[in-house]
Amino acid sequence: MGLIVQKFGGTSVGSVEKILNVVQRVKAETDSGNQVVVVVSAMGKSTDQLVGLAKEISSQPNKREMDMLLSTGEQVTIALLSMALNEQGVPAVSYTGWQAGIVTEAVHGNARVTNINTAAVQSQLSEGKVVIVAGFQGLTEEGEITTLGRGGSDTTAVALAAALKADKCDIYTDVTGVFTTDPRYVKSARKLLSVSYDEMLELANLGAGVLHPRAVEFAKNYQVKLEVRSSLEKIEGTVIEEEASMEQNLVVRGVAFEDEITKVSVLGLANSLTSLSTIFTTLAKNHLNVDIIVQSTTDAKTANLAFSIKTEDLIQTLGVLEDNKEQLNYEQLDAENKLAKVSIVGSGMISNPGVAAQMFEVLAANDIQVKMVSTSEIKVSAVVEEKDMLKAVEALHQAFRLSKGN
Amino acid sequence: MGLIVQKFGGTSVGSVEKILNVVQRVKAETDSGNQVVVVVSAMGKSTDQLVGLAKEISSQPNKREMDMLLSTGEQVTIALLSMALNEQGVPAVSYTGWQAGIVTEAVHGNARVTNINTAAVQSQLSEGKVVIVAGFQGLTEEGEITTLGRGGSDTTAVALAAALKADKCDIYTDVTGVFTTDPRYVKSARKLLSVSYDEMLELANLGAGVLHPRAVEFAKNYQVKLEVRSSLEKIEGTVIEEEASMEQNLVVRGVAFEDEITKVSVLGLANSLTSLSTIFTTLAKNHLNVDIIVQSTTDAKTANLAFSIKTEDLIQTLGVLEDNKEQLNYEQLDAENKLAKVSIVGSGMISNPGVAAQMFEVLAANDIQVKMVSTSEIKVSAVVEEKDMLKAVEALHQAFRLSKGN
Repeated sequence: MGLIVQKFGGTSVGSVEKILNVVQRVKAETDSGNQVVVVVSAMGKSTDQLVGLAKEISSQPNKREMDMLLSTGEQVTIALLSMALNEQGVPAVSYTGWQAGIVTEAVHGNARVTNINTAAVQSQLSEGKVVIVAGFQGLTEEGEITTLGRGGSDTTAVALAAALKADKCDIYTDVTGVFTTDPRYVKSARKLLSVSYDEMLELANLGAGVLHPRAVEFAKNYQVKLEVRSSLEKIEGTVIEEEASMEQNLVVRGVAFEDEITKVSVLGLANSLTSLSTIFTTLAKNHLNVDIIVQSTTDAKTANLAFSIKTEDLIQTLGVLEDNKEQLNYEQLDAENKLAKVSIVGSGMISNPGVAAQMFEVLAANDIQVKMVSTSEIKVSAVVEEKDMLKAVEALHQAFRLSKGN
Repeated sequence: MGLIVQKFGGTSVGSVEKILNVVQRVKAETDSGNQVVVVVSAMGKSTDQLVGLAKEISSQPNKREMDMLLSTGEQVTIALLSMALNEQGVPAVSYTGWQAGIVTEAVHGNARVTNINTAAVQSQLSEGKVVIVAGFQGLTEEGEITTLGRGGSDTTAVALAAALKADKCDIYTDVTGVFTTDPRYVKSARKLLSVSYDEMLELANLGAGVLHPRAVEFAKNYQVKLEVRSSLEKIEGTVIEEEASMEQNLVVRGVAFEDEITKVSVLGLANSLTSLSTIFTTLAKNHLNVDIIVQSTTDAKTANLAFSIKTEDLIQTLGVLEDNKEQLNYEQLDAENKLAKVSIVGSGMISNPGVAAQMFEVLAANDIQVKMVSTSEIKVSAVVEEKDMLKAVEALHQAFRLSKGN
């Protein structure tokens, strides 16, 4: 007998019929004698509908009230799933985030989980009940409802699994696992049987979209064994754990990509020791995330700086930089849109120094210009023009032998 | 400067446009320098939609989970209204039932408010904020979400007004006040400027539908001054307070009516001291409400008993009586459907003994057969055939000079 945390995303609970399918997934575990905690998202498009109502009222709705509004979505799902389980003879009880003891920092829209008081959940488990917890939401120490931002339900599931010392955390989704690249765009994409936390972290960060990076980080920190699997097909998924088994001894495990990237250049930046930190501290204070950063010194007095952001953050980023022009001490701003980021990921890279060079060769051979580069121990990212993105992904996928049947 | 509690029902917040109308109603009070607490229901048909989802899953959904599900409806409204007020420059904060400190007994679907911890609401009021509270919901001492049953938002508003010692509680609705009878059916119905709590209690209990009886009772017990008024038209409503001004010195103030009534007869009931209490205790334990009760003794050993219930409760009522036939010790059950209840209400009746007789005369003169009768100090009710209901109401409305222009 073990303790399993199962997480079902919005598409997996998008209708009453799909909720009944989830019941079967839960029942399979309880029939095997396992204790089960289920974390669910809001049904299908219901969050979008709530956002739509808010937007009718205000173009920038009050963030506290947005959390109040959106947290109802998951609450609907937990109630319906619990009804369905009880109807099928599986004793179950639903808990909102606050009832499940999920404490977060006092930030609206994107709060981090700071603590979980598991007493109530554990008490229900010991009474033989399935506990259904609303994902994506928590409560501050002051009693305010918060939401955890994008992928928040993944975080709820992993955090609960860590706090409850669960044997496993199964993330059910509409794909069958983690692939070498996005199978919607690259036909030869192949499902990986296992990846390491670090690889998954890079894949998640790089737009693979299956699992939210914050959830993977949480899983890594607390050594929670994850499995990403299909809510519809009863087949093995992808296991994420500390040491992934080395399939075919491949150096590169996956190719991730993300469009709608913009490169912002800050030209003629006064070349002082603090100029870089001042710029990025200012952006961070405004909750603007910067990805790749490149700096080049033009002369002794000034430097040019470039960084990549999501295109949707462009107007706000330029606004912040312009509002602080005097303090930041630069001459000119420039922005280049319609870019994309393509990355190769694999923990074997650490011991294979030629991988980055090989990536640039492949891109050059395909006439793809590289605008920015970033490397870590287990990944290499290149910013390219959006129109070249899929061509780059396919070429890299093939060059690093990630395709089916290789 | 005073403290006003305003309550807006589902039709008054049924769309974004209507929520913006509520903003004007709130703003009018804050502009006058008043502190305002707003209690709202779920938007329009949203509760019905949630019930529909639950019914797709189970014909008898788990009651705890039903409360979990339905309480999201009001939470959506409070968030949207708070966004709208903040957008219009009126500082506002929304509270769920549990955040507003509304404590209830541990009953799902129909809980009573046992206590209100007003500290959080008062703290926000003193900071100059409008506090928006989700109606219809509360929390048990054990942290379980409950709902207050039909008309629950009225109860929330009155209970908050009592706990906060508000100067007034305005119940905004889709009618302009309390009428001498239902103006949708009787054209000559006239709006009353004031009624007493007791009169309103009888009118509410008797299906006048404007205010839930539990809310009126609460208002009477705590002497909360109520006004029922239109959320759309800016005109005076009906004030409900201890001593209503005697308009035109009328004995009868209103005619209430309710259809879908069923008369259940229990024949050959063993004539013991405890037989009546056993039957009604058994029904009450099963949450079945009985209205009018008539008993007649046939001989020394047995009695016949008849009582009226809502037709929707018939199957469950007969089931409970049959399941307990041996213990209850009766011979036979009988049920008569398609009945209605017509009542005249007025606190002046206490000192006018001939009123009941006059009512029966009017009914007899109109060939309307009376099936059951019940009287209190301020009302007389008669159960008649459903087909005769409106004829009876119109005849009584005219006979007791309640019409416009009289």
